[in-house]
Formats: sequence, structure tokens, C-alpha cells
Amino acid sequence: MIYLDNAATSHPKPEAVYRAADAALRAGGSPGRGGHTLALAAGRQVMRAREAVARLFGLADPARAVFTASATEALNLALKGLLRPGDHVITTRAEHNALRRPLAALERQGVAVTWLPVDERGLLDPAAVRSALRPATRLIATHHGSNVSGALQPIAELGEIARRAGVFLLVDAAQTAGVYPIHMGRMGIHLLAAAGHKGLLGPQGTGLLLVDAAVDLRPIREGGTGAHSAQLDQPAVFPEGFESGTLNVPGIAGLAAGVGFLVETTPERIRCRELELAGALLDGLRGRPGVKVYGPERPEQRTGVVSFNIAGMDPGEVEELLDERFGVIGRAGLHCNPGAHEALGSLALGGAMRLSPGYFTTERDIEEAIRGVAELAGH
Amino acid sequence: MIYLDNAATSHPKPEAVYRAADAALRAGGSPGRGGHTLALAAGRQVMRAREAVARLFGLADPARAVFTASATEALNLALKGLLRPGDHVITTRAEHNALRRPLAALERQGVAVTWLPVDERGLLDPAAVRSALRPATRLIATHHGSNVSGALQPIAELGEIARRAGVFLLVDAAQTAGVYPIHMGRMGIHLLAAAGHKGLLGPQGTGLLLVDAAVDLRPIREGGTGAHSAQLDQPAVFPEGFESGTLNVPGIAGLAAGVGFLVETTPERIRCRELELAGALLDGLRGRPGVKVYGPERPEQRTGVVSFNIAGMDPGEVEELLDERFGVIGRAGLHCNPGAHEALGSLALGGAMRLSPGYFTTERDIEEAIRGVAELAGH
Repeated sequence: MIYLDNAATSHPKPEAVYRAADAALRAGGSPGRGGHTLALAAGRQVMRAREAVARLFGLADPARAVFTASATEALNLALKGLLRPGDHVITTRAEHNALRRPLAALERQGVAVTWLPVDERGLLDPAAVRSALRPATRLIATHHGSNVSGALQPIAELGEIARRAGVFLLVDAAQTAGVYPIHMGRMGIHLLAAAGHKGLLGPQGTGLLLVDAAVDLRPIREGGTGAHSAQLDQPAVFPEGFESGTLNVPGIAGLAAGVGFLVETTPERIRCRELELAGALLDGLRGRPGVKVYGPERPEQRTGVVSFNIAGMDPGEVEELLDERFGVIGRAGLHCNPGAHEALGSLALGGAMRLSPGYFTTERDIEEAIRGVAELAGH
Repeated sequence: MIYLDNAATSHPKPEAVYRAADAALRAGGSPGRGGHTLALAAGRQVMRAREAVARLFGLADPARAVFTASATEALNLALKGLLRPGDHVITTRAEHNALRRPLAALERQGVAVTWLPVDERGLLDPAAVRSALRPATRLIATHHGSNVSGALQPIAELGEIARRAGVFLLVDAAQTAGVYPIHMGRMGIHLLAAAGHKGLLGPQGTGLLLVDAAVDLRPIREGGTGAHSAQLDQPAVFPEGFESGTLNVPGIAGLAAGVGFLVETTPERIRCRELELAGALLDGLRGRPGVKVYGPERPEQRTGVVSFNIAGMDPGEVEELLDERFGVIGRAGLHCNPGAHEALGSLALGGAMRLSPGYFTTERDIEEAIRGVAELAGH
């Protein structure tokens, strides 16, 4: 099997991730639930994981690294915990439904939203963001790397625009966290949402919202918080006020092991490896008759995600045949992001076929995938 | 180590739970994310888990068994997805913060709430619920087993009251699911919330909301849904419209293995074992000078949770000394449930010490715990 669906969830994980998740599950104990040996040990483990992700992304206060069940939950928390009716938000028309849908729900409740277009490669123009600023603007919210076009948005430039305008910047880093070096302070990011099970190499069921000290966030889920129990109002205390309910300790332990692997390997080396593999895939697919490849030309403007269509074939059919005949696993369809497909011109085609290499992908895997696509395209 | 904190999270789990979680994590694949081999296999696994929990709790349509990250998330979804300003809810003053706090938040938004007292044993009087009904009543919401007093509420009676009044019944079964036989249909439960990592013996990071066909629920978290991707509104489709974000597949696989163990052992046998162990613990602690045991007298009115205080000692000190000197692990404090302690008279004492046996607890464990408490109480 040649797994090229790392944009959905990374596979395989480093062996240390499997072991850490299993060890934590066997150890038992819930942080903040009791002061006994097991609860304290689990608490220390989760605190170490918090410190590791805060360090990785340049967040000064680890307590403001909130664990969630997914990037989707992190984005819901960021948007609903920050915005109020009357606020204005600038975003793009090419957001994943995890950002697009909660923001659309807020729009119906009185939040004003400017939905900016991306170009036919999937790229957002920072000048358009600058022009869209209003006195009521409170937030610029966008993805870092597109899960469809692979386009990398100019986050540092947006950070600079946000800083000058005195507004916040929320970045959906579901596709880039762990793969592309991200530093919240240096890039001007106030809220960073990420999945734990993609580039960060942790288990499914984990996500992150990192919140800069300048942001006054409200919790959106009420419940037990271990401390402040007698209070009727949900305490807006980081992190426990934002993490009500027993934490996914095995998942977080696995995520910490994934982050450990990344730090050891270095995000720079991982990014280089991704560039090599995506470059080889792009080179092999581009220019083939009947194969239309989407997204930016230059590898520096891209993540490892490569989407394409084969003339006369439904993307779902391509997915099926690549899996059945060549053992090549990717994902076809709209990828929960119809706006991105609209920009690329692939919405009417039912989306596209997507291949996404990961750190453990080999050159041979890429060759096999290219051979498969070539055969399906009739070469 | 003698682990008696199963009310916080069960420990250990059956070996099959560890193995299933590890196998799913190593297998990869996310349900509804792609139509390839791994995604389909993960989808089948999650569907089998859904069928297993639906069968266990007497829910006709497995699609209406929604996986959440915790019982807390399940309760937030049930309350916020059902209630609107103007609705009236009947609940108790002895709810865990996971039910009390989201309901208090809704109260501030215009939902009317009647907070009924429980008696000094922790029991709710069904007659009081009947008297509290109003034309605007939409929901009766309460816990099944108290995480503090161990009191078992008369759910089937409440179900009958709800049925006659034409209102819904939401049950927080965090302490009873998997330990006490529950059948939604026969008990008249419309919404059943449970943790996956307590009596159901699954991993932390899992929870459940089971929704009867009569209930028209709205999603409270927007995001990707695998299907219906082009739609801007969050689709209120069971289950995917309520599960946006990548599912915790390893957690769910482990939970299914836990449920498998329960079904094989039978909930009746598990309940009997709990009665035996809790009975032995109660017998050993009650009547000792200086030891005050809370909750109903009769074992049939209780779960396995036993809370107590030792005269002149802070509950936290009891927790610490039991752990350090006797290796007995329990949990002291308010247990995220100040109202329950208020009813028992233990709020001013800083709560109580709680011991909660599980299926793998032995008679010898109980004896050791009793010996420890006796020594601390100066016997």
C-alpha cells in the first residue's frame, strides 16, 4: 500500500507515538481529577505536552495552549470565543468547512464577514486584505496551507497587516503545523488552530488552539474544570476553563511523542523533505496530456498537497482505480472545501483527486503514483 | 497500588481495549474522509461501534448514536442543541458541573430552569418533578447516578412522567453507563449522555450522546462532514452533522472493545459485582466512630461510589495519606459537583473523600482501603 493521504491524517506515525499512546492508556489517571499519584502523573504528562507545543510554535505561555479534540473544535472555539455581533472579520472564499461553516453561522448572528476571493492558483492577495479593513474589523481569519490547492498563504504579511491595524490574526494551520516552520510571535499570529493527527504526527482525536496573551477568549463549552468547582459560571481560566471534560490523555501523550519526533528531526528538514517529494510528484504529473494539476507553480508557494484531474474521468473513479489497481491511496472529492475548488475551476467536476505525501513517503512511492496516474490517463 | 477512583476514569481496562486502540492507531484511516481502503475500514469499525452502543442502550437507530470527546461535550450538545429561549427545564441542584454549567449559561440566555433539591441522601423525589411541570416545560434533565453520593435517581419513573407530560428526558449516565443496565426505550429516555472511559471501559477522549428519533436536535459545532460538503449550513444529519472534525478512531475502537467486554460479561453481572464491592466498603466504613459516610442506606439505591469524611481531617489530607501510606487511590474535594455536597452537608468541609471500586477491584482491595481509613480515623 502506498499511502498518499497525509492531508487527511498522517500515516504511519513514528513508533514512539504508538508506544506513548499505549503507555498512557495503560497508566490511567486524568489531569486535574484528584491529587493522587495517577492523576498527578497524567497532569505532568499533559503539562509537558503543552510546553512542547508552545515551544514549537513560539507561544510564550504554555497554559494558553489549549487541547481540543480536533482542529475543527479549535476553530469553533477561536471564532465563537472571540467574536460578537457587530464585529467584522476578513476571510477567504477558499476556507475548509471547519472555518467557513462556523463563521457563516456567526454571520447569521450579526458578525459581518468579508469573503475575499483567492486566485486561480489558490493564493490570497494581501493587498485585498488591507483594502477590506474597516473600523469594526476585529479578526483576519484564514488557512495557512490549502488542503485542496496546496497554496501557502502569506501569513507573515497578514500578521504585519493585522499588527498595524490592531486586529487579531487567526490561522488554520491544519495542513502546515509540524510540516512548515511556524512561529506565532515572529509571524504575528494571535490564534493558531491545528490538528494533532496530521503534520504533528499524533493520534486522531487531538487538536490544538494556541492563544496569544493579547486575546481575551470566552469558553464555549461549560463543564467541570477540576478547580473553581463551586463557581456557577464557567471560569475563563487557561487552560482548564477551555478544556472541560476529561482530556484525551493517551491522544495527548501520543501527540507529545509526535512533536518530540518533529523537534528531533527539525521542522526545517521535514519541510525540505516535503518539498522534494511534492516537487517530484508535480514534475511527474505536470505537462502530461489529459492531466490537469492545480495550485501554485513554485514549490515554495505550496505544501505537499497535489490535486489534479484526468480528462474524462470522475475524481472518485480515479481514487478507486488508483487504490484498486496500484495500491495508491489518496482522496477524491470536494475535501470539505467547495470554495477552493470553485477558485481552481474544479467544483463543477465534482472536485479533484488529491495526493499528499508525508515524511515517511519514499521516492519509489511517488514513482508508483505517477505511473498509476499515467496509466489511467492512457499514456 | 489499589485503584479506587473508577468514578473519575476506570482503570485498568480489559486487555482487549488496549489492543484495539493500538491496532486502530496503527491501521490509520478516517471515516468519511476518502473512499479508499483505509478510510472505508475505519468507517466500518466506527459503524460497528455505533451499532454496539445503540444495542447496549436500546436505541433503535445506530446513526443516532453520536460520538463525542466526553460526557461533558455530549451534555453541552444535548442542552444547546435542543433548548431555545422560552423553554422550561426541570433539573436538580445536585448536577455535575457538566450539566449544571451549560444549563446555567442557557438560563442567562432566556431558558427557564427549575433547580429541584435532592434530599440529604442525594435522592430526587419524582413527585417534585411532577409538580414542577409547566406548559413551557420541554425537558427533564438529571443524572442517573451521583458522582458524589452514589444515589441512583428513579429514571424509569421520570421517564413515565416525561412521557405523560409530552416532554423530553435527558439522562447524564456518566456514572452508570456500562455498570447499571440502561434501556432508553424501556426507561423512557430521549437523550442519553455518557463518558466512554468510565463504566464503558474505553479510553479517555471518548463520550456518547444517544438521541431518540423523536428529538429534533441542532448541531452546535460546525465543520467538515465528509458528505454535503458544498452546503454552507451545517447539515443536521445523523451522525456526521454532529461529529464535525476527524473522529477519535483509536478511542472509539477501544470503546467498542470495552462494550464488547461488558456485553460478554453482561451488565447484570457487572452491576452485581459492583453491589458486592460497594456493599463491603459501606459495611466496613459505616458505624465507625469519626467516620461519616454519605448517600443512600440501601445498596439498591446506589452506584459503587462511596463518599465519606473523617472527623477533624480535611478530605484532601485523607486522599494524600491513603495514597502515600496505603497505596489506596481515591479522589477528594468537590468532584465538580458543589450542589451534591451542599445537599449532603459536606460543602463547608471542602467536600469529601470518595472511593469508587470498579469491575477489576478485589475484596482484598476493599479490605485494605477499610484498614487505611480505620487507621487514619484512629482505630
